[in-house]
Amino acid sequence: MASPAHKPQGEPEAAPERIPHRAARDSYLWDGVEMRPYKEDERALYKTITRQVLFSDPNMAGELRYFEVAPGGFSTLERHAHMHGVLILRGSGHCLVGDAVKSLATHDLVTIAPMTWHQFRAGKGEPLGFLCMVDAQRDRPQLPTPEDVTRLRSDPAIAAFLDGTS
Amino acid sequence: MASPAHKPQGEPEAAPERIPHRAARDSYLWDGVEMRPYKEDERALYKTITRQVLFSDPNMAGELRYFEVAPGGFSTLERHAHMHGVLILRGSGHCLVGDAVKSLATHDLVTIAPMTWHQFRAGKGEPLGFLCMVDAQRDRPQLPTPEDVTRLRSDPAIAAFLDGTS
Repeated sequence: MASPAHKPQGEPEAAPERIPHRAARDSYLWDGVEMRPYKEDERALYKTITRQVLFSDPNMAGELRYFEVAPGGFSTLERHAHMHGVLILRGSGHCLVGDAVKSLATHDLVTIAPMTWHQFRAGKGEPLGFLCMVDAQRDRPQLPTPEDVTRLRSDPAIAAFLDGTS
Repeated sequence: MASPAHKPQGEPEAAPERIPHRAARDSYLWDGVEMRPYKEDERALYKTITRQVLFSDPNMAGELRYFEVAPGGFSTLERHAHMHGVLILRGSGHCLVGDAVKSLATHDLVTIAPMTWHQFRAGKGEPLGFLCMVDAQRDRPQLPTPEDVTRLRSDPAIAAFLDGTS
């Protein structure tokens, strides 16, 4: 006899709960979407960034998340084998992609290729909110070594970006 | 000897061209993104809708497209096994998802479950632009039979939606 934890073979999986329509609320929040609140990293890897998972489903190969960086905040500087497809939904800021610093405006697109160092930073005056499409199955991010940071900082534009003075 | 069309085994694929930053232009167009222009379907399956593929990459399991429906226009009424994750980027309108008609505002989220009839319609006064995340590997859409349409139309709210009078 199958244990309660196991379904008989051939039994279809229960369909996940799917809400057909979730309204946008004020301030880039959505009905039925949990916001992961600000939580500072004691190693200062990131600063004042929130995450909301907009689409994640066992029947979809991709996920779509919304990240919002408060003025002066930034995402983690990292790299990984999986890619990111990013669309700026709100505000402006800068990003580092590989060895290039880019100025970002609303609705701009950013493509993060595999194993490419990247970080997003909001400007001083307004938040930076962005959609990020990612594979549901993905590897864990890698953090830079001190040597990686030294090498990146050898470019004055990247040093200014990392210091938040772009 | 391998034909020119085939690479020797073990040869890495050439990396696709990836532009790290593509700026948004006016009117929901993007640098480096081709817009498929309006092309009316002689069967009137859709009306005044354009498509732009924002992210599609051999290393990503998902794709992100931007569709824009002109005022009074609509997408194809269809269903398929693959899912859609939709975020309204611009304007407002209505959608049919299964047997429900929903009013849509900017930044609302719409989840199209597998094998669910769906269609998007712009209002009379403004375009409806939306992002649509989809699996790169997916089945072809199915069109409704006359019987399907009759059954859908038996709901007055759906009939009004299909007539563009929601």
